[in-house]
Amino acid sequence: MTEYTKIMLDESDIPTQWYNIIPDLPSPPPPPLHPGTHEPIGPDDLAPLFPMDLIGQEVSQERYIDIPGEVLDVYRLWRPTPMFRARRLEKLLDTPAKIFYKYEGVSPAGSHKPNTSVPQAYYNAKQGVKKLTTETGAGQWGSALAFACAQFGLECEVWQVRASYDQKPDRKTMMEVWGATVHPSPSEVTEAGRQILALDPDSPGSLGIAISEAVMQAAPDPDTKYALGSVLNHVLMHQTVIGEEALKQMEKVGEMPDLLIGCTGGGSNFGGLSFPFLREKLAGKINPTIRCVEPASCPSLTKGEYRYDFGDTIGLTPLVKMHTLGHDFIPDPIHAGGLRYHGMAPLVSHIYELGMLEAEAIHQSECFDGAVKFARTEGILPAPEPTHAVAATIREAVRCRESGEEKTILMALCGHGHFDLRSYKAYLAGELSDYEYPTEKVAAAMERVPVISEA
Amino acid sequence: MTEYTKIMLDESDIPTQWYNIIPDLPSPPPPPLHPGTHEPIGPDDLAPLFPMDLIGQEVSQERYIDIPGEVLDVYRLWRPTPMFRARRLEKLLDTPAKIFYKYEGVSPAGSHKPNTSVPQAYYNAKQGVKKLTTETGAGQWGSALAFACAQFGLECEVWQVRASYDQKPDRKTMMEVWGATVHPSPSEVTEAGRQILALDPDSPGSLGIAISEAVMQAAPDPDTKYALGSVLNHVLMHQTVIGEEALKQMEKVGEMPDLLIGCTGGGSNFGGLSFPFLREKLAGKINPTIRCVEPASCPSLTKGEYRYDFGDTIGLTPLVKMHTLGHDFIPDPIHAGGLRYHGMAPLVSHIYELGMLEAEAIHQSECFDGAVKFARTEGILPAPEPTHAVAATIREAVRCRESGEEKTILMALCGHGHFDLRSYKAYLAGELSDYEYPTEKVAAAMERVPVISEA
Repeated sequence: MTEYTKIMLDESDIPTQWYNIIPDLPSPPPPPLHPGTHEPIGPDDLAPLFPMDLIGQEVSQERYIDIPGEVLDVYRLWRPTPMFRARRLEKLLDTPAKIFYKYEGVSPAGSHKPNTSVPQAYYNAKQGVKKLTTETGAGQWGSALAFACAQFGLECEVWQVRASYDQKPDRKTMMEVWGATVHPSPSEVTEAGRQILALDPDSPGSLGIAISEAVMQAAPDPDTKYALGSVLNHVLMHQTVIGEEALKQMEKVGEMPDLLIGCTGGGSNFGGLSFPFLREKLAGKINPTIRCVEPASCPSLTKGEYRYDFGDTIGLTPLVKMHTLGHDFIPDPIHAGGLRYHGMAPLVSHIYELGMLEAEAIHQSECFDGAVKFARTEGILPAPEPTHAVAATIREAVRCRESGEEKTILMALCGHGHFDLRSYKAYLAGELSDYEYPTEKVAAAMERVPVISEA
Repeated sequence: MTEYTKIMLDESDIPTQWYNIIPDLPSPPPPPLHPGTHEPIGPDDLAPLFPMDLIGQEVSQERYIDIPGEVLDVYRLWRPTPMFRARRLEKLLDTPAKIFYKYEGVSPAGSHKPNTSVPQAYYNAKQGVKKLTTETGAGQWGSALAFACAQFGLECEVWQVRASYDQKPDRKTMMEVWGATVHPSPSEVTEAGRQILALDPDSPGSLGIAISEAVMQAAPDPDTKYALGSVLNHVLMHQTVIGEEALKQMEKVGEMPDLLIGCTGGGSNFGGLSFPFLREKLAGKINPTIRCVEPASCPSLTKGEYRYDFGDTIGLTPLVKMHTLGHDFIPDPIHAGGLRYHGMAPLVSHIYELGMLEAEAIHQSECFDGAVKFARTEGILPAPEPTHAVAATIREAVRCRESGEEKTILMALCGHGHFDLRSYKAYLAGELSDYEYPTEKVAAAMERVPVISEA
């Protein structure tokens, strides 16, 4: 009989505030710039797309922001989420390391994404907005926003990348069950979509095109706004409920991590788990190493440059300072669709530059090899994105076996792979490609990044 | 701010004993009979298919049986499961009823099935068995057994009904991720399968054929045994962990149900939730109404006869006394594959005959209508099987709105529908058929039920 495997919290342990790391940092992140003037943007520049409460959170200097009761009432449907000690995986690996994981796959949409879709929908509804538009690649974010809109009586219109729309019909149906309208992107609905289709009627689409369609639909309509599922400061802040709960759970069993591991695509799952631990580290209370894991074929932190670039492929968004592989770089078709992003959250990028984070890149076949080991011992089938965290955790646990170190590892398991079994099938059939890092493609994309003269 | 929505328990609240309701009943259920002699069967008759520990549990007169530590160590991966107060659904329905639901979809396989697959795999491994065979229709049971076999180092061979094998490739991959071998049924692997294929190379298969294949593969091989996911006494007993936890959760918030509602196919989810509440009712401590819900097109309790019949279509199993529509009755292709069974657990049938249970039958379009309401308020997409419980709960909540009664309802939500979105798609597209009860087909099947002269 073991002492604990699953570490539960009570409903009263759900955090009642989000944590904003910015005031605790030794320097603030550089401001977003207007794409035309290259001057820092103001709230008015963002008002056509976001409600004022979220714009306020994006630039807030407050360390804590109260979570509205209406949002907590929805969080209660799946929060607090469980933390597990991966005893069966430890045994398989014969490691002296203690492996813990915080599991966000118990949310209705199956990932951490509802932690931010719910407050985003709430603040929009509060401001009288009637409809939200968004893009979705893997389908996780579109599902999360569809669910959240259903909770607050908002319409939801999603542009799903054509390739995903065709390959993942179940994600589309899930969004429709929650009441959303789903278009393949490129679509005939927007001017951007029509232009692309005129050039290539069979276009498989891209996240960049889908963002353009969702933004173009929202911007001119005062009753419609746009929602983004990662990258922005307020999104990462909403996700800190993960880390706040994880701190309580580690304390509950008298442990504290020596090492935190999370996958990074846009950075929201990683920031959500790690920022509360970083706060404690900055306060000198704990001293964990904090490690980002990214795909070897799309390694924005380990190979990208830290400079101003667009958040979308076409170049409609403000310029943000981040690690980037070039805004029009199209990553190879790895299965972790949520990590196929040319950039990294400006906040994660900034903290990485401050030397407070490590990063490593792993190929997808090693990730799925780890995921199958994980599924056979811990039961859960990870989504392709967190298989990167699983593989990095296994690497570390094996190092501990060799060194004899009794390291305590905390891993972010941000979602389940119930809608991603096609990728497991490809792995089991030996059909998974490890795309090498495309040096020349990235160099070419970086040529097209605008040159900003910084003050 | 609400008082509670999600009712959590600690790991220490996982039950350490299964509850066997048989000694608490005013009379025992009639014994299974040998199909040849019509005499009660003994342990030796079952030994080729099941390990002695499970045969002992099947006929046990002990009220409680200790759950082995090795089984508890696996239960901890998802137990205790959460209970919810469906506050958002109550609000939508404008009902004074309090609706609670116990959610088993957090298990690795996505349903209550691992509650019994894990002990079944454990006892087989303990006896030195190397491999388990089974059938699966919707895929839930096959997944649960594949997961359990991975935990105890057993091989697992699953015959998946051909129609399901073709329509649900993700369930097949899930079983393979956990290390199982999956055959479509009918298959070329067994004599039974080859015979069917010789007659009809395009046979879509049936649960009955798949059972025959799994049993035929296991019976002659001393290292291989067979596992069944419902119907038998020991299976229902393993599921009582659901009801034991639910009792604690209701007590934790100072509530107790006036009405329990669960869907019934083979009866294991229903028995698992209701038997511990029945124990308390028999002891005079509480007095809930307990209601089974079944598909209108396959209503074994409300329309079937209570008599001895075979458990499988072909007639290989012992004869058991149960509510049956005839062992070779093939139900219409409703989406709730787990409820497409001609009979009902002998134990549930017996207790129903004792007058301790109610039953009602509902068509699938009403079920999916309820499921979409549920998903839009509570977030979770129910599997097609528990949509029957959802619809019955909504019926009752609406009655309470009309009568003003503040009834407390506890519903069994036995699994999620992540692999069943095809059925939601059909519902949303208005393509769901409500099959009428096939009076003549059942009458014909009942003609073929053997006549047993009971002592």
